Amino acid sequence: MNGAESLVRTLVGGGVNIGFANPGTSEMHFVAALDKVEGLRCILCLYEGVATGAADAYYRMTGKPASTLLHLGPGLGNGLSNLHNARKARSGIVNIVGEHAGYHIKHDAPLTSDIEGVARPMSDWVRTARDSQTVAADTALAVQQAFEPRVATLILPIDTAWGDANGPAPVPPPVSRQRVTDDAIAAGARALTRGEPALLLLGGAAVRGKALEWAGRIAAKTGCRLMSESSNARMEGGAGRVRVDVLPFAVDPALAALRPFRHAVLVGAKRPVSFFAYRGKPSVMLPEHCEVTEVAAVDSDLEAALETLAAALDARNTPPAGVASLKRSALPSGKVTPDGVAAVLAALLPENAIVVDESISSGRGFPAVMAGAQPHDWLNIMGGSIGWGLPAAVGAAVAAPERKVIVLEGDGSAMYTLQALWTMARENLDVTVIVFANRSYQVLHAELANLSAGAPVSRALEVLTLDRPHLDWIALAKGHGVEAGRASNLDELAVQFKRGLASRGPYLVELLM
Amino acid sequence: MNGAESLVRTLVGGGVNIGFANPGTSEMHFVAALDKVEGLRCILCLYEGVATGAADAYYRMTGKPASTLLHLGPGLGNGLSNLHNARKARSGIVNIVGEHAGYHIKHDAPLTSDIEGVARPMSDWVRTARDSQTVAADTALAVQQAFEPRVATLILPIDTAWGDANGPAPVPPPVSRQRVTDDAIAAGARALTRGEPALLLLGGAAVRGKALEWAGRIAAKTGCRLMSESSNARMEGGAGRVRVDVLPFAVDPALAALRPFRHAVLVGAKRPVSFFAYRGKPSVMLPEHCEVTEVAAVDSDLEAALETLAAALDARNTPPAGVASLKRSALPSGKVTPDGVAAVLAALLPENAIVVDESISSGRGFPAVMAGAQPHDWLNIMGGSIGWGLPAAVGAAVAAPERKVIVLEGDGSAMYTLQALWTMARENLDVTVIVFANRSYQVLHAELANLSAGAPVSRALEVLTLDRPHLDWIALAKGHGVEAGRASNLDELAVQFKRGLASRGPYLVELLM
Repeated sequence: MNGAESLVRTLVGGGVNIGFANPGTSEMHFVAALDKVEGLRCILCLYEGVATGAADAYYRMTGKPASTLLHLGPGLGNGLSNLHNARKARSGIVNIVGEHAGYHIKHDAPLTSDIEGVARPMSDWVRTARDSQTVAADTALAVQQAFEPRVATLILPIDTAWGDANGPAPVPPPVSRQRVTDDAIAAGARALTRGEPALLLLGGAAVRGKALEWAGRIAAKTGCRLMSESSNARMEGGAGRVRVDVLPFAVDPALAALRPFRHAVLVGAKRPVSFFAYRGKPSVMLPEHCEVTEVAAVDSDLEAALETLAAALDARNTPPAGVASLKRSALPSGKVTPDGVAAVLAALLPENAIVVDESISSGRGFPAVMAGAQPHDWLNIMGGSIGWGLPAAVGAAVAAPERKVIVLEGDGSAMYTLQALWTMARENLDVTVIVFANRSYQVLHAELANLSAGAPVSRALEVLTLDRPHLDWIALAKGHGVEAGRASNLDELAVQFKRGLASRGPYLVELLM
Repeated sequence: MNGAESLVRTLVGGGVNIGFANPGTSEMHFVAALDKVEGLRCILCLYEGVATGAADAYYRMTGKPASTLLHLGPGLGNGLSNLHNARKARSGIVNIVGEHAGYHIKHDAPLTSDIEGVARPMSDWVRTARDSQTVAADTALAVQQAFEPRVATLILPIDTAWGDANGPAPVPPPVSRQRVTDDAIAAGARALTRGEPALLLLGGAAVRGKALEWAGRIAAKTGCRLMSESSNARMEGGAGRVRVDVLPFAVDPALAALRPFRHAVLVGAKRPVSFFAYRGKPSVMLPEHCEVTEVAAVDSDLEAALETLAAALDARNTPPAGVASLKRSALPSGKVTPDGVAAVLAALLPENAIVVDESISSGRGFPAVMAGAQPHDWLNIMGGSIGWGLPAAVGAAVAAPERKVIVLEGDGSAMYTLQALWTMARENLDVTVIVFANRSYQVLHAELANLSAGAPVSRALEVLTLDRPHLDWIALAKGHGVEAGRASNLDELAVQFKRGLASRGPYLVELLM
């Protein structure tokens, strides 16, 4: 077998069974190996940012890394933005990046570039394979890293792909998760029982499953408030789940929400900081009088941490506080408003849906309303780099084919990686996309005001608006092979959303704002 | 004035009058400054790769750098692929990349990344502004670098944009071009007059204007063969111009084309190397028996070099050899064939058109036929990273609004940066796009065969074909606000191409292959 085949067999042996690929010439031996090896389903993406964003969401839904397949430095460059988002989400990914034959690099052919240099800023681990005999061992290390979870980038010179190899290499087991110390638990318990206003701030895996339930028991026992970070890689919400308020995104509401607390206990969360810096506003958002106790970092076993904390508080059998119940409300009607949109979505959301939220300015109020909807998973963009939502929907739908995926997408952000629509059509992924067509980089109008940079007039306004010409999302969807419909009021939104939910493949709703 | 305004005033003062922008929050002071300062036309691009590709072609057509405006590390990442192409084309660009306030970086907010690290692999010059008082001086250096020409990246922390500044800084003049030495000229003249088969291989600015004419005189005098590198940043061709054969892209035809020569004289060209390495084929393509004389590197004054060489050969007044004349042939008819397509394009090409060629596998035979067409400029992708053509057309059309721009685009490559269509519509750019819809990464089928990696069967074939579903280019164009038509034979191609040429704005032709 050749190096490429040993690589693919190592991926499969290590539990990597999905690849999101945008290959070029230097990756052809990898592609050829797909015909020889069972167990790696490779999904074609027409742009690299689709592949990396899909891999991010695939990890979030399965806890297993996918591989990508990218074409030299520029192809990796096209994938960087969503690798950035994946790293901030702590998603594991194995990037396979093709490279020239080692002996060809010195000739500075057109596609030659410093691939390790391109990889490093958005990867936790980077290696260039040196030999076809050792590429399997390199791959095994990359897979181990991805299960940590880390973004691992393995650069594959084509001569290491075409040369002879002995066979796949076994993937070493991941390093076991750090357990929290008794001291940290004791400190957390003390902070929550001082009789002063206390916040239990949750992040990472603490906002789902058993961890969330333990948090609810702790809140019931101690009276502390539960809150999550303002963005969450995957948060479980809706009826039957412990309700956790999401820290607001905007600085002033976030400062107001945090002001009451004398104690903040962090489990999987970092000290909250503002998304951007604004003149005269603090970067750090907890009030000065608030004492912070870091119980567990995001990469520790957060379920165990919360269970131990609950035990220390004698709350193991306390019924959880704030379990949400299903709110059955009538569908709102008439003009499009943020609250009306949220009400339509909440009323119609199917059980066990996965919601991919890149609604940006249009969706700030959604999380609060969704507590009364059917139980669901909610995925946020974690690195703030837009163009994540449609690719993430691809990854989520591949990860959970039996669940409906709903994407809430700003029109501006959808445009960065709209090629994802084609992969949804090709793979017949069960995704309903709602594009909030405000025909503007609406968030920037608000940010311009926040920065006191002055109101935009003519030339400045020109770079903030998407209205001349307006994007026709029905046509864009059709061009990629996806059915679509348009809604310009809440009644039409309900009709269109139902149509998407009733389909068993991709459907796009353009909602005129 | 604030730092952002001093930056914009420095750009304008230094001769940077066009910006291709995809801004975010951290760039809002720059955006606000556009309303205060005359002279910088900022053109909105809905994706960063569109901005950087447009800046590349703008430089090629004007010899003046444009600026880009990009949003932190991930936004720069999205622009890297076309910065790579720009660098390989030796196009000057001033990238302005927003960054968090200096004091905010340590808090590791979601968008924080190593921006200098992202910039370095595809930039010749990188600097982070340290202070609002010195940002103008930093900008002046960036502009000087861009005129060298180099890809210069200036990172702009938002506190250096909002803080006070004294005013713009003057841009130092560019370092003057290296002149070639008398020894190099003498060596070149000797090689061309040995009476043995000699090649004058041209690159960079040697394939246009007066330089091309001098090359024609030298060929007439010495009997040497004129050839250009296989890709050219901007080559002048067509009737009335000295005809220069383009070195073939594929290895075997290139080796065959170069085999006859005992001498190769390089003016603005590098020793030809194969685009990729293939097992058992050489990386270096000149035959071993060929003696190479490097007269002038690409960054020297190539017109002066060729004039001096012509003088040394007593060829200053020799009429140039191989001046092409207009071939008026009847329009071909019937089934789509590569030769038929080339004949239609050559017959209808308007005078002084700018042809942006990213036709990849569909267009290998075009250059030979185009010698008999009306005079035109021909732009190739220089770094081999696809997704360059549509953005480059934006830049070329902005640079030369009085000329027709024609883009020859593979369907696979068009998909990387199709958002460029929207900017064409918004700015009403006079661009006719021909998409070669072979519904496949056709080049990869050929490359797979070249690499002897085996014929693709099922899973491998899955990642090489774009046919399920097929992309509907009429709908994709309409979605971006661009009119379009479809052609499935040469007669329809002629009708559609004429329709595009008759319009005074963007028009897209989907040619089914």
